[in-house]
Amino acid sequence: MLAEIKGINEECGVFGIWGHEKAAELTYYGLHSMQHRGQEGAGVVVSDGEELKAHKGLGLVNDVFKHADFNKLSGRVAVGHVRYSTQGGKVLENVQPLLFRSQAGSLALAHNGNLMNAHKLRGELEGQGSILQTSSDTEVLAHLIKRSGMETNEESIADALNQVVGAYAYLILKENKMFAALDPTGIRPLSIGRLGDAYVVASETCAFDQIGATFVREVLPGELVTISDEGIKSTRFAMREQRKMCAMEYVYLSRPDSDVNQVNVHASRKRMGIELAKESPAPEADIVVGVPDSSISAAIGYAEMSGLPYEMGIIKNRYVGRTFIQPSQELREQGVKMKLAPVRGIVEGKRVVMIDDSIVRGTTSRRIVQMLKEAGAKEVHVRIASPSIQNPCYYGIDMSTRDELIAANNSPEEICDIIGADSIAYLTEKGLERAIIMEKTIHQGICTACMTGKYPVKEDGQTEIMYTKC
Amino acid sequence: MLAEIKGINEECGVFGIWGHEKAAELTYYGLHSMQHRGQEGAGVVVSDGEELKAHKGLGLVNDVFKHADFNKLSGRVAVGHVRYSTQGGKVLENVQPLLFRSQAGSLALAHNGNLMNAHKLRGELEGQGSILQTSSDTEVLAHLIKRSGMETNEESIADALNQVVGAYAYLILKENKMFAALDPTGIRPLSIGRLGDAYVVASETCAFDQIGATFVREVLPGELVTISDEGIKSTRFAMREQRKMCAMEYVYLSRPDSDVNQVNVHASRKRMGIELAKESPAPEADIVVGVPDSSISAAIGYAEMSGLPYEMGIIKNRYVGRTFIQPSQELREQGVKMKLAPVRGIVEGKRVVMIDDSIVRGTTSRRIVQMLKEAGAKEVHVRIASPSIQNPCYYGIDMSTRDELIAANNSPEEICDIIGADSIAYLTEKGLERAIIMEKTIHQGICTACMTGKYPVKEDGQTEIMYTKC
Amino acid sequence: MLAEIKGINEECGVFGIWGHEKAAELTYYGLHSMQHRGQEGAGVVVSDGEELKAHKGLGLVNDVFKHADFNKLSGRVAVGHVRYSTQGGKVLENVQPLLFRSQAGSLALAHNGNLMNAHKLRGELEGQGSILQTSSDTEVLAHLIKRSGMETNEESIADALNQVVGAYAYLILKENKMFAALDPTGIRPLSIGRLGDAYVVASETCAFDQIGATFVREVLPGELVTISDEGIKSTRFAMREQRKMCAMEYVYLSRPDSDVNQVNVHASRKRMGIELAKESPAPEADIVVGVPDSSISAAIGYAEMSGLPYEMGIIKNRYVGRTFIQPSQELREQGVKMKLAPVRGIVEGKRVVMIDDSIVRGTTSRRIVQMLKEAGAKEVHVRIASPSIQNPCYYGIDMSTRDELIAANNSPEEICDIIGADSIAYLTEKGLERAIIMEKTIHQGICTACMTGKYPVKEDGQTEIMYTKC
Amino acid sequence: MLAEIKGINEECGVFGIWGHEKAAELTYYGLHSMQHRGQEGAGVVVSDGEELKAHKGLGLVNDVFKHADFNKLSGRVAVGHVRYSTQGGKVLENVQPLLFRSQAGSLALAHNGNLMNAHKLRGELEGQGSILQTSSDTEVLAHLIKRSGMETNEESIADALNQVVGAYAYLILKENKMFAALDPTGIRPLSIGRLGDAYVVASETCAFDQIGATFVREVLPGELVTISDEGIKSTRFAMREQRKMCAMEYVYLSRPDSDVNQVNVHASRKRMGIELAKESPAPEADIVVGVPDSSISAAIGYAEMSGLPYEMGIIKNRYVGRTFIQPSQELREQGVKMKLAPVRGIVEGKRVVMIDDSIVRGTTSRRIVQMLKEAGAKEVHVRIASPSIQNPCYYGIDMSTRDELIAANNSPEEICDIIGADSIAYLTEKGLERAIIMEKTIHQGICTACMTGKYPVKEDGQTEIMYTKC
Repeated sequence: MLAEIKGINEECGVFGIWGHEKAAELTYYGLHSMQHRGQEGAGVVVSDGEELKAHKGLGLVNDVFKHADFNKLSGRVAVGHVRYSTQGGKVLENVQPLLFRSQAGSLALAHNGNLMNAHKLRGELEGQGSILQTSSDTEVLAHLIKRSGMETNEESIADALNQVVGAYAYLILKENKMFAALDPTGIRPLSIGRLGDAYVVASETCAFDQIGATFVREVLPGELVTISDEGIKSTRFAMREQRKMCAMEYVYLSRPDSDVNQVNVHASRKRMGIELAKESPAPEADIVVGVPDSSISAAIGYAEMSGLPYEMGIIKNRYVGRTFIQPSQELREQGVKMKLAPVRGIVEGKRVVMIDDSIVRGTTSRRIVQMLKEAGAKEVHVRIASPSIQNPCYYGIDMSTRDELIAANNSPEEICDIIGADSIAYLTEKGLERAIIMEKTIHQGICTACMTGKYPVKEDGQTEIMYTKC
Repeated sequence: MLAEIKGINEECGVFGIWGHEKAAELTYYGLHSMQHRGQEGAGVVVSDGEELKAHKGLGLVNDVFKHADFNKLSGRVAVGHVRYSTQGGKVLENVQPLLFRSQAGSLALAHNGNLMNAHKLRGELEGQGSILQTSSDTEVLAHLIKRSGMETNEESIADALNQVVGAYAYLILKENKMFAALDPTGIRPLSIGRLGDAYVVASETCAFDQIGATFVREVLPGELVTISDEGIKSTRFAMREQRKMCAMEYVYLSRPDSDVNQVNVHASRKRMGIELAKESPAPEADIVVGVPDSSISAAIGYAEMSGLPYEMGIIKNRYVGRTFIQPSQELREQGVKMKLAPVRGIVEGKRVVMIDDSIVRGTTSRRIVQMLKEAGAKEVHVRIASPSIQNPCYYGIDMSTRDELIAANNSPEEICDIIGADSIAYLTEKGLERAIIMEKTIHQGICTACMTGKYPVKEDGQTEIMYTKC
Repeated sequence: MLAEIKGINEECGVFGIWGHEKAAELTYYGLHSMQHRGQEGAGVVVSDGEELKAHKGLGLVNDVFKHADFNKLSGRVAVGHVRYSTQGGKVLENVQPLLFRSQAGSLALAHNGNLMNAHKLRGELEGQGSILQTSSDTEVLAHLIKRSGMETNEESIADALNQVVGAYAYLILKENKMFAALDPTGIRPLSIGRLGDAYVVASETCAFDQIGATFVREVLPGELVTISDEGIKSTRFAMREQRKMCAMEYVYLSRPDSDVNQVNVHASRKRMGIELAKESPAPEADIVVGVPDSSISAAIGYAEMSGLPYEMGIIKNRYVGRTFIQPSQELREQGVKMKLAPVRGIVEGKRVVMIDDSIVRGTTSRRIVQMLKEAGAKEVHVRIASPSIQNPCYYGIDMSTRDELIAANNSPEEICDIIGADSIAYLTEKGLERAIIMEKTIHQGICTACMTGKYPVKEDGQTEIMYTKC
Repeated sequence: MLAEIKGINEECGVFGIWGHEKAAELTYYGLHSMQHRGQEGAGVVVSDGEELKAHKGLGLVNDVFKHADFNKLSGRVAVGHVRYSTQGGKVLENVQPLLFRSQAGSLALAHNGNLMNAHKLRGELEGQGSILQTSSDTEVLAHLIKRSGMETNEESIADALNQVVGAYAYLILKENKMFAALDPTGIRPLSIGRLGDAYVVASETCAFDQIGATFVREVLPGELVTISDEGIKSTRFAMREQRKMCAMEYVYLSRPDSDVNQVNVHASRKRMGIELAKESPAPEADIVVGVPDSSISAAIGYAEMSGLPYEMGIIKNRYVGRTFIQPSQELREQGVKMKLAPVRGIVEGKRVVMIDDSIVRGTTSRRIVQMLKEAGAKEVHVRIASPSIQNPCYYGIDMSTRDELIAANNSPEEICDIIGADSIAYLTEKGLERAIIMEKTIHQGICTACMTGKYPVKEDGQTEIMYTKC
């Protein structure tokens, strides 16, 4: 039971638009561009000024929306959400935006992040007689807003936000207002754009490019933005000293064409590869190979800096989707390949530098090293374009418990042995910072808790960084 | 908005089983036999003693359940529900049983009926900070149970039931207990059966026959039945003077093979036809024709009593389902038929007595009379096997507002004109009682509010019949 | 292999329309009304005068056609087909109309019936180098037409028809002409109607009623009707002495509202019940019960003639469709019911006359008798409204091999024992003829081969009835 | 009509396996790895030694096959096919392998290529009374085999192959034998591999890697390979002077990890980029960008040779599939992106070398150049890694008519203008040959007809290269 009511809201994407005839359709395209952030389910809630209407479903954005659906989703305002696929909770009731109706009006919420005190708040709410219908953190916030009897909506929302602790980017929709809120430490990304007269809010800037919108600015840590027909208004519910943007957004989570905290993701990855090549060269190697798709940028950076040729030594089957029939153990043992396959003609007889973005449990790395060796690679030197992950994330990234993290329990030498590589090296924390934080004036800092154990926010609301509730 | 949050829980069917290895499958068959009570959606919640699991969907029982679903629905206990198709509310969130999870355990509810004070209770709950996610009355009861801080479950449920007013049959499931409750006036049907060692509860007795179970007894008005591994236990939360079973269950709602309040439905319908023939003969007519399916029994009764031959003058297309493509207005005008069609070879040149179970808005009757005349019927004498419906139902049957009821605004002569018949007659209230209440010792009374305006329960909880909350 | 290439084209329905803007849609409604003749697959081929376009699929008419499909099926001419569900051949390639394209133009064929010499013709065609892609007889005719080098289409078709032997009703479509043909003995039904200026052809007249068309006349045995923009034209490819319409069309195959050979089917069934009551009364019985749906008419006739009350002692679940999950053997043994269920409240303690239209293998009859007895029937007297079936049908009705026919191998007394009845009686051949052939001037005769062994057509083309190829 | 019966069998993939328990499943994985060769439909035919069984469908391999399907596809032998999506012919009847049954046994055919004289042969066959049911060339070969009355299968097939002219790779299956055949000029690829004791045949070698099989050799031009339980046997039906492998297989058609005529495709593409950088440098440019996916290898080659950095300036949305809702014209004009999107953070203010594999109609190139400029690229220098395409292909690649080929009607300067680039250059024919044909001893030659107009085979069967029918 516990597992089921533990709040789970990870690696999702949110999108909102205010003031466009085709609000629902543009939300579809915006969500589509953020599909990589969540493939379990998708949904949209539209407002025509009078009423909120929802359309949601399990599966990819393309599965959930059919062309005819947009006829029923008229309205100039919409919020949408794509949800990450976690084990256990794959049920329609958890697909967001959550929509709550009452005699006083409706409320829709879309959330990316994780609340550290959700379980405690849920217990308190239930003790007071509330019934929560989903296992998502998002519903907790809805109840807190409802119970906060403040006069204006902004006040009720700010009051509720000051009760929750964690990392979050929220979009909240009422019939005649949209709110965007970011946690006081700014761990998750959330940006504002414009499309003609319309306002757009999205987790990743690639959603703006997708629909032809222009980036305006990021939502600030501790900021509550209100968008309505009267325009945009900003209030602060908390002040922070320094932002700590999740480093994993750069390492593997965001799309390479997005700018996160105004730094292009592909460019940061390529610099990770360049820094990695400086720190840990492999001078005897013949070729550099990246694990598709997220490690290609780093591999190209490594190749450029090292002077080794970049080669397509691993290929990813583009057609492996959720309906792919997984080969049985028997067939796998006979050599039937899955999603990734080595290119024998490229790697045979070669000393390969294999670039990957990160190692979590080590099982995938072991499989890829083995695959390359079976295809004839003479040596495989693994280079990881980020520091080793030794700590769980409490801010919304699903990366297993500490027990499962291979680097939490093994030295790099032991990991090298386990995955069967000829050498291994990780990018250092300093190297990662150099690659991401180019200009201090713009970028204020990254959260590296999963690598370094330095957690910027604690469950009791204490933070490394001082901030003041407003 | 009002319409959407008005409680709507009409003409549904509930089914529960305690103590059988195949609980979910038997619930499927039970629901299947009550499919006529609700075609919008279906669902089941099972308990394996530790946890409740739900499986629900929009559509027919056959659409919602696939064979493989039962593998995931293990457990010896289950409650199920079929939901009536009303306009507007066709959304998955309203499909029952509703399942509410909390840190203290889960609660599932399945409901047939209508709460008259649901809107008022909903307003009070929202005023106290509760969020209700569906537009169904059933959720109101769940919140009332949750908020009632009584010691035992029975007490919390009894306390909640004493706050609601209306007609209802509830099945409530916790991990280790099942509850069945009936409103103090007993307007809706709910019966208990046995299948080997297992207990079964269902809206209609045809569900017992479907799975090979035996009828034991009905749940009594104001009774709360608790079923657990310790057996069956009865408490009363209210005492009533006289039961008032909904007359429409006999007239058209229940399946002919069900016994409602221990009276067989087909037999009661045939007696309605017999009484009708006595009261309103049509001596000049050639043949008796029934409108399929629900009026066939009455038509046969009318034919037997009158001595006229029963003929199949109207045929119903068995394959018209929800995927049937409705003919356009243009094609309908050219004569393309829909669900019902006249049999020219039977009715041509004949004086027809057309038996129907009831007239609500009159549009269907007009279409059928016209259809018979176009097929050559010389005269059409309409005989209705129930009194005219002049009042809306507040107890769970969706029969339009008073404005739409043809008999609320027109005399029989006017109706005869409107529908184009050559004569019309309704069964009298006395005739209906004679047909249904055969033996006073068993059957205590019927609710005929929609025909007579005598409402046994008022919205303020006052009843015609005296009863005492326990 | 043999089984697979044996021609199978049974109990199907054909529909054609010439000269209506909504040809494809009207074909949909026409096929829909003949759904009972074939539930395996359905299809339509339209002509816009230039080109033939097909739309076909496995399943019910409603499954095969979606509203949007009609947009792609423009044209004022269409032929359609519903196909009976036989074991083994449920593949899309066998769904009709079959469409053959060649550089000289296209040809579509829809067929109801069975060719007795199909296997032989198929062998000859293959020996000459032809490749046949389906296992249907219909394709054989297409090859024969193609190979017949006659000058006009009528001549080629007539030449081909004179090579095939059996029972058939064909609709054949070219870009600018439609042909309808009936076998020289007229075993299968095929009628012509009008809808405004349009011509309609259909297996059953209920299709005319469905779309508002008027019956004009039947296609004559051995007649080839040509319909084009120049009107309707008739030629004879063979002359027959006397028509022999399949008796089973009346007994159970056709819809009760159809007229077959100008005799209404329901009326003929009721007369079968009347004749049966005269021949084989059951004076001690309490009630008459029919097996739904096809035996209800006969049961009402039996009740009327015998003076016993007709009661709804067996109910058919309307929602059992192809997606119904069949109960496992274990659940069936525990009493879970399937499609038909007894009504305990009606049959308990009663001596029941159970009317069925026919007995083929006896397994269903045994199950129903047992069901009635388990529901408390004191006695069950089985009365069959047709003579016993002792011989296989070679003319298009799938009724098992002789070994499986219970009446081929057992006396009535033995059958009575096997099915567990208290008495049994069949309608005589004379009784059947009296019930069907009311007016000799109209109706010329029936084929009772499956009952009497008098086969009107032999595989070598010899017929009981003399006819001359034209 | 003509268009519809013109043989269309383009850019497909074939797969066969002999002698493995899991023949159908391995065919699924083999076809899956060749999904890029055809996304319209897929199918498999298995033999259990007695009988051929087919499973086919429209859509991707994943759509067509469900896990349970393999239960019905037992047998140690299988052939499979993926079909390219062409306009118009998207019907199930064209999905291969085609399966023809006759009283003498069955025959399945899978085909990659195009027959130049298919239309003529089809006319002759129809003139002789044959009916062809599909619009595919493959059926023509089946009829020719059937009509060739030779004694052994090999002889009938060889006789039929000597009547057809064009480019083809065939797999032909009978109950107890599999045949693989390649056209005398060897334009299309077809290779033989082994998996344990089993033989495998496939269009691309990536299918061998996918299932863990080992490459043995290619099928030779004009060779007919017979595989049975007695092993593998080779005959020649025609002798050729020099093979002419389709150059487009390297340029864009094959998967980068395949070896075509024993040359790795990725490596050849990278060399095309290198040759292109030598021939047509862009010294003033800042970055090199490839159009995903097929031009990435060439772009990396160009970057390596030129010393310019390779950057991910264009990103491909991985989730755009067939169910993607295409943006309306209105939304596209407002800037909504489709499959490909520029990365503003990378290209803004840069002089970009944009590498593409080829230009056919020019519309895609124009859109990408415009996209890059809108994202801020200062200059866009287009470099095409193959010679310009000026001639239609008659050998199985669907590349529009001559009228649509932009290079057939415009000079490079005009094309540069049309697509809005700042400069353009194509790889020369010599450069292409250097990139592909590394070692003359292995690789014998390429067909560059679409670039050079040198057609190695004419419709009348005359070839540039001399060969002798055996």
